[in-house]
Amino acid sequence: MSKIYKPQPVSGFPEWSPEARLVEQGWLDRIRRIYESYGFTPLETPAIEVLDVLVAKGETDKEIYTLSRLQGEEEESREARLGLHFDLTVPFARYVAQHFNALSFPFKRYQMQKVWRGERPQEGRFREFYQCDIDVIAVDSLPLGYDAEMAEIMVECFAALDIGAVRLHLSNRKILEGYLKALGVKECIAAIRQIDKYDKIGTEGVIAALRESLGLDEQTAQKAIALAQIRSEDAAFAEAVRALGVSDPLLEEGLAELTTIMQRLAHLPAGSVVADLSIARGFDYYTGTVYEAKWLDYPEFGSIGSGGRYDDLAGSYINKRLPGVGISIGVTRIFSKMLAENRLDLSRHCPTDILVILPDEATRARAVETARLLRQRGYNVEIFPQATKLKKQLAYADKKGIPHIWFPPVEANALHEVKTMATGEQKPADPTEWAG
Amino acid sequence: MSKIYKPQPVSGFPEWSPEARLVEQGWLDRIRRIYESYGFTPLETPAIEVLDVLVAKGETDKEIYTLSRLQGEEEESREARLGLHFDLTVPFARYVAQHFNALSFPFKRYQMQKVWRGERPQEGRFREFYQCDIDVIAVDSLPLGYDAEMAEIMVECFAALDIGAVRLHLSNRKILEGYLKALGVKECIAAIRQIDKYDKIGTEGVIAALRESLGLDEQTAQKAIALAQIRSEDAAFAEAVRALGVSDPLLEEGLAELTTIMQRLAHLPAGSVVADLSIARGFDYYTGTVYEAKWLDYPEFGSIGSGGRYDDLAGSYINKRLPGVGISIGVTRIFSKMLAENRLDLSRHCPTDILVILPDEATRARAVETARLLRQRGYNVEIFPQATKLKKQLAYADKKGIPHIWFPPVEANALHEVKTMATGEQKPADPTEWAG
Repeated sequence: MSKIYKPQPVSGFPEWSPEARLVEQGWLDRIRRIYESYGFTPLETPAIEVLDVLVAKGETDKEIYTLSRLQGEEEESREARLGLHFDLTVPFARYVAQHFNALSFPFKRYQMQKVWRGERPQEGRFREFYQCDIDVIAVDSLPLGYDAEMAEIMVECFAALDIGAVRLHLSNRKILEGYLKALGVKECIAAIRQIDKYDKIGTEGVIAALRESLGLDEQTAQKAIALAQIRSEDAAFAEAVRALGVSDPLLEEGLAELTTIMQRLAHLPAGSVVADLSIARGFDYYTGTVYEAKWLDYPEFGSIGSGGRYDDLAGSYINKRLPGVGISIGVTRIFSKMLAENRLDLSRHCPTDILVILPDEATRARAVETARLLRQRGYNVEIFPQATKLKKQLAYADKKGIPHIWFPPVEANALHEVKTMATGEQKPADPTEWAG
Repeated sequence: MSKIYKPQPVSGFPEWSPEARLVEQGWLDRIRRIYESYGFTPLETPAIEVLDVLVAKGETDKEIYTLSRLQGEEEESREARLGLHFDLTVPFARYVAQHFNALSFPFKRYQMQKVWRGERPQEGRFREFYQCDIDVIAVDSLPLGYDAEMAEIMVECFAALDIGAVRLHLSNRKILEGYLKALGVKECIAAIRQIDKYDKIGTEGVIAALRESLGLDEQTAQKAIALAQIRSEDAAFAEAVRALGVSDPLLEEGLAELTTIMQRLAHLPAGSVVADLSIARGFDYYTGTVYEAKWLDYPEFGSIGSGGRYDDLAGSYINKRLPGVGISIGVTRIFSKMLAENRLDLSRHCPTDILVILPDEATRARAVETARLLRQRGYNVEIFPQATKLKKQLAYADKKGIPHIWFPPVEANALHEVKTMATGEQKPADPTEWAG
């Protein structure tokens, strides 16, 4: 045997225990089920992209991993440089441009893949994590109905994860942009980035920042922040904005859109969505509706899901106008927080529902047949692989958290029995009918 | 708008159309369902490993991609070098060693992830592809029951993919090794590698290779190849081997093991498994049972699934003996072949079962409620986002291959109707009861 290389965890690349991974897989399945239930189709793009694609929009704030071949040769320099994707939006935009003629629009896709960012290793920053995205895109124009649907889906996903209350905050970039324009603010995007910090630095902080970095006067800064303070769980926000006495066509357009969306979300459980005009998603390319999901149990934790509407998905790659709207759920971040807070049920170590006992070699065929019948009926079933002491077989089930133990009969015409671990109850059962 | 960067496909990194991807996702789901039905737990390891882990076994035949940060700094050289995993066995071995104390044995896991190999770009060689692996490992010893289970699972998976007949060939490395040892062949592994080519170069080719590269005499080479020609769909192979008049304890052990496994697989459909003593899996670390799945429609295509039993999974990383047995299904290779042969049903463009028509704005709330009811009952449902011409809404369903069209009533107490595209039939339906 060669020397032992003792492996160490690599910072930023999370890896779960089997118990935790089983829960994570369940989360991904639930999100996927919801995405599919709204008709989104499962797309997957390679983990790698040509580097020119990754940097086409000039995104230098995302740290990119590039690839080299370990046994690379000189000829390699003629090949295109490759990098790992840092999100799923850039690959999706590239995909749509490349396969444009083969797609039907509006095109609704989900993509649930890992992405990589070459961040410096530090606490709480992942270098590999899951993104669970949906987007719908169309050619030239996209109905507002999808903006409401996105909000509905995000609310449904968070409810399915069982992580406590989550509130989805909505706004529309046209409101803030139109309003600031009407106030005479020229560097609109820069102002939005400051207002986006409202949650973190408060009213005074934003006013100071607007005055210092943008040279706004006190009154204009006050007016800007007054808008950001407006919230309502229904369409009432629009009146509050109009009461500020600022008028602008873009502002009106944004108010009308957000009003329609809030009205269409009126059927959702109370408190699940709120119009919140402080939401700006400052660093993103959104042009209409914006979403930000906040976790009520951990207000300091920041956004756990976000998204918005954009004017043009793939303008860097194709000469078509492709407006869209999309959301992204940051599963790995949420999951690792729930894990750290001991809020996950880690009692199951495997998906096995039933352990079939192997009492002796002569009963093996019957045990195998029993397992097959139960599997056909949708149960996950293991057979203990060796005719060994019952105690050892039961200890295995116990250690793995398997909820039911099946005893196939040793005599040909005797009854099967099944024991439910949670209650300790053991009774006769028929493998073609039992429901547990 | 900045300049347009027209993206090109990157050789070796496959990417499917939405229709094909939907089928691929279905394949992965079916394989996963089967793996879980036998109690394998979903494990996932990061795409990256420390380079020392990847090369710990001295595997230089696999081309490894290494990573660098695009905006990397000098400090970086102090961090461990990272590479993308080239298979799922090395990461699994590392995982087991690293988390040994937290695991329960026998440990059964499945892992379905993409792997990367920095091959030179050429036809039919993938640089990114799915591997779908299961392994069961134990400490010190592992019952033979699992070897039979692996074969059963592989047969079930291929049947579920609907790719035509697949035959699983089984052997046991102890048979070939014991036999060659008894014949006085010293370079056993080298001889096995030659015999492994039996399928490709035939009897004469292997005899010539054994004589030339290993210096075996004609009679020994003939004897070696006589073993490799033995096949049987039951346990009859053992008698054929004994008739060759070669005796050795390791050979006998191998014969006994393979006999037991073939007997335990007697319940499988005729022709699905065959004991085939030419199977050697020459380049792998197997020490007992070996598996190789062959596609009857494409005999030249090579193995589409393989695996075997090994003495020690993680010897490079931990000072424990961890014997195991595992299989791997090469989904991407099989899928791309089926796609190239036009053998996939690509009629569905999305998972949507039902398109709910939006006749006018006033009916939107009823359409939304109808969609919600149908989704709760497990259907995948889209609502057409805009109250536009019926013809346009129907054209959308047609283009996307959506099988059912739902007409919510425009009048409050009127009946819903549903139209099935395949038959053209349209009839009244209740969203709380309809089954399609």
